[in-house]
Amino acid sequence: MDTVSSLLDAISQVGRDRQRGGYSRPVYSAAELTLREWFGAEAAKRGLAVETDRNGILWAWWDIEGGDRTGALVTGSHLDSVPGGGAFDGALGVAAALVAVDLLRERGVQPRRALALTVFPEEEGSRFGVACLGSRLLTGAIDPDRARNRRDPDGNTFADVSRANGVDPAGLGRDAGALRTIGDFVELHVEQGRGLIDLDAPVAVGSSILGHGRWRMSITGQGNHAGTTLMEDRADPMITAAQIVLAIRSIARAEPHARATVGRLQPMPGGTNVIASRVDLWFDVRHPEDSVTAQLVEKIHGQAQKAAAFEGCSVTLTEESFSGTVHFDTALQRQLQTSLGGSPALPTGAGHDAGVLSAQVPAGMLFIRNPTGISHSPEEFVERDDADVGAGALADALEDLL
Amino acid sequence: MDTVSSLLDAISQVGRDRQRGGYSRPVYSAAELTLREWFGAEAAKRGLAVETDRNGILWAWWDIEGGDRTGALVTGSHLDSVPGGGAFDGALGVAAALVAVDLLRERGVQPRRALALTVFPEEEGSRFGVACLGSRLLTGAIDPDRARNRRDPDGNTFADVSRANGVDPAGLGRDAGALRTIGDFVELHVEQGRGLIDLDAPVAVGSSILGHGRWRMSITGQGNHAGTTLMEDRADPMITAAQIVLAIRSIARAEPHARATVGRLQPMPGGTNVIASRVDLWFDVRHPEDSVTAQLVEKIHGQAQKAAAFEGCSVTLTEESFSGTVHFDTALQRQLQTSLGGSPALPTGAGHDAGVLSAQVPAGMLFIRNPTGISHSPEEFVERDDADVGAGALADALEDLL
Repeated sequence: MDTVSSLLDAISQVGRDRQRGGYSRPVYSAAELTLREWFGAEAAKRGLAVETDRNGILWAWWDIEGGDRTGALVTGSHLDSVPGGGAFDGALGVAAALVAVDLLRERGVQPRRALALTVFPEEEGSRFGVACLGSRLLTGAIDPDRARNRRDPDGNTFADVSRANGVDPAGLGRDAGALRTIGDFVELHVEQGRGLIDLDAPVAVGSSILGHGRWRMSITGQGNHAGTTLMEDRADPMITAAQIVLAIRSIARAEPHARATVGRLQPMPGGTNVIASRVDLWFDVRHPEDSVTAQLVEKIHGQAQKAAAFEGCSVTLTEESFSGTVHFDTALQRQLQTSLGGSPALPTGAGHDAGVLSAQVPAGMLFIRNPTGISHSPEEFVERDDADVGAGALADALEDLL
Repeated sequence: MDTVSSLLDAISQVGRDRQRGGYSRPVYSAAELTLREWFGAEAAKRGLAVETDRNGILWAWWDIEGGDRTGALVTGSHLDSVPGGGAFDGALGVAAALVAVDLLRERGVQPRRALALTVFPEEEGSRFGVACLGSRLLTGAIDPDRARNRRDPDGNTFADVSRANGVDPAGLGRDAGALRTIGDFVELHVEQGRGLIDLDAPVAVGSSILGHGRWRMSITGQGNHAGTTLMEDRADPMITAAQIVLAIRSIARAEPHARATVGRLQPMPGGTNVIASRVDLWFDVRHPEDSVTAQLVEKIHGQAQKAAAFEGCSVTLTEESFSGTVHFDTALQRQLQTSLGGSPALPTGAGHDAGVLSAQVPAGMLFIRNPTGISHSPEEFVERDDADVGAGALADALEDLL
């Protein structure tokens, strides 16, 4: 029988990023398409019926007699990655779901309701800038027009890229039929912090997801020649951007439980001997209370405007996505903890499709220990034993829920 | 007869950059290759013999009886651009040289020595990071091994890209034979500052080029998840990079006549929800005294190391190119001023192939008024009349020197 590790080993060469280290598997890239095919083949090998829905979400069905799919039990995760990400974020949950099916079969479980394995597209938002884009479309949490018009760094729209991958962009958006098939949703995921290291446990059940959002800030100045323009004649947006990066950190540090990050920043035109005419930067803010997140962003915007005015630059702010703090369904959480023999509950600072789905269906999560505590990095890790314990725990949970 | 403007109009659609505005014509890109072909065709139309030398420099020869090319008069510029650059930087000098040939023919000038028009590759250094790469190779100012191993942002080496464009990388480097053919070199170029606006004159003769160099700084920290990593647990190289950007500006401002710029900065992996593991930034420093430039870079390095240590990051510094302040050949400068009826002399803060060549052969420059004072930007401009006056001035200068 496959183990989680043997499944992940089979895809360990797909989407390697030699420049950044780790993996770059943006949605609908050659790498992510290879992983989708791999998933389809593994699901078919297990006799599951593989389908792609109108939002590009993959479903692999273990149907019951009569074929009724209403209120099914659904588990899955995603196969896209951040640029230079680890091998486990997303893929672990997909591989564990496949192994869990094997374990349920081995145990002779006879499902009373259908079971589906899902793969969500663009969970990371690393290509089109909106995290959990697939689950947001499915649940209607994003206006489909807005999704269609999102562009990747090469300028391709999500509509065009979807079409090129066999998904009619006209069909994107809330899918009531698909939602009716989800009775409960459970996502297994590598932990992205040090909670399980501190608890000395391999598995925990998710309790909440920290509210988080992404904003894009564009700072416009006067592009010019780096050699001929006197220091006092400049309106250099890179200076303002640097001041904003530091302001964001100070503002987040001053607010307990807040986190704010600038991980992406792009000067235009981006030449060494050119004063930038514009700098775009993206910041990520998280806080348990949504009103505080809004205040933090307000403060950042205010300081950015001041810094820009002082430099002779101007600044615009655009919200790219926002998700309020999610508390997972209490009954499902307790049920998962019971199935797992009293596993601890853990909150997380990371966003997940399970968090988006929880607005519409009972959703829950299992977290698997990450001995580095590091994620969104090639250093993210899961021990082989912990991965197998995780798949076993997922099978236990699914068995009790089926 | 062609005017400078009619020639530039013919290439006004080549290499347009819809994202940045203006033009992006990196060396050996489809756009720059189209421009090289255009130059070859225009030169051939004028009966000039077009050749590519072993450093990828284009030469178009107006030979004299007997075919001796030793100590020829050479004029030209470049056709590559910075990302999102203007229509004149480089291309103006090439178009003016073609028109100057027409004017010399019209005037019935009988050259006493050969005349060559040249197009230098990678003057901007926007693809392989070293400005004036073609003229540096020709004069031996760069180790050919270092040039061969330079990589573009996609990871292609200059050796591979040269080979793909018909230039054997083994032949790159100092070319004594080609240097012997250059008796005098004159480059016409759009002014990249406001000198001629202030002088209310269309043309000036170059007197000196400000010493300048480029350095790359890599700041390494700990990549991690933006949501799960507490503010106090971070070693975020973006913070250090922002501090360095501001330090560079302060250091340059405190030193009279100094200029320093960060126009290019790249976080790795570059995801919005990812704390960067590394940030690369490039800075450009210029000062009339080379020893002061060295001190400024030393100071920047020192402050960067302090900022990095405080954040738990580390920093490395690499010099990518350096050119000391150039004073153009005094006799040639006086001769050019005389030919032009007493044109003013102007220093420039911008680097040019003429500056690199001046270490080995008498070299001089003509600058043409730029009514915006802005360069390395789509806003760079030259009036049609000024362009024609410039070509006429170049023809006058060449006529006296032939």
